[in-house]
Amino acid sequence: MKMNEGVEWALHSCLNLAWIGADRAVTAARLAAYHALPTAYLNKQLQALARAGLVTSTPGPKGGFRLAKPLERITLMDVVTAIEGPDEAFRCAEIRKQGPGAQPEAAYRLPCAIAESMAAAELAWRKELAGTTLAQVRERAERRAPNAPGAIRRWFENS
Amino acid sequence: MKMNEGVEWALHSCLNLAWIGADRAVTAARLAAYHALPTAYLNKQLQALARAGLVTSTPGPKGGFRLAKPLERITLMDVVTAIEGPDEAFRCAEIRKQGPGAQPEAAYRLPCAIAESMAAAELAWRKELAGTTLAQVRERAERRAPNAPGAIRRWFENS
Repeated sequence: MKMNEGVEWALHSCLNLAWIGADRAVTAARLAAYHALPTAYLNKQLQALARAGLVTSTPGPKGGFRLAKPLERITLMDVVTAIEGPDEAFRCAEIRKQGPGAQPEAAYRLPCAIAESMAAAELAWRKELAGTTLAQVRERAERRAPNAPGAIRRWFENS
Repeated sequence: MKMNEGVEWALHSCLNLAWIGADRAVTAARLAAYHALPTAYLNKQLQALARAGLVTSTPGPKGGFRLAKPLERITLMDVVTAIEGPDEAFRCAEIRKQGPGAQPEAAYRLPCAIAESMAAAELAWRKELAGTTLAQVRERAERRAPNAPGAIRRWFENS
């Protein structure tokens, strides 16, 4: 089971947009060039972020993407959901209802114990994702690479 | 991101094997028939469980699958790893090292803050999966469907 690589791209792009600042819109082509990513595919991820209300997209020659809100109000879960969709990774197909052991529907009033146990574990993951803001991630990144934000800002300003 | 449906199949098959009892081996065809699953594909999952040491497979006319150990010693994580492999869902491709902002390798001594945050969240999931035994799931299932174990055992004995 592999998460779409677009999640990594989207997370880096959100941090880059924060470092660039909300005063300028950045095209998908520029965001892609900074990490040597394919523009069309990154654009698809950015459009997904826009649909989720995490970035705004403005058309025209000075257009591009901006963060729609501060990183304090964007969580890892928001970005994962925007790119991957809201469905859980473990999807119960209710095979307990199939085959010779199948019971009348009333017997399945309570959820399958297997599905419930898998969902409980996945909830722990989602709680962590929802409890981590991109502001926390940015802070951690800046502690590790104090010069990166300035370098990123300058590259996007000068190119 | 969707987990392989084989995880659900494998979990149900492990519980069914526990209810049937270790005194008899069951073929993939019988296990598949009980939930109306495709035999060849369930067999593939059962072989994966065997490689992971969760079930044993014996050849021959009286052969088939048995649990290799009690459900108390099999966790949800064991089954997920057997079917899905050990890789994390979020796989960092280190795009921070790509493009015009790339630094000398020494600058990347510390892991990427994004990858680390995603890994921390995923660890919470894995901890839950590893902390839940199939014995706990079986207990939950039996509370909900007290007649199911007997009915399953009888079907496999009589058919």
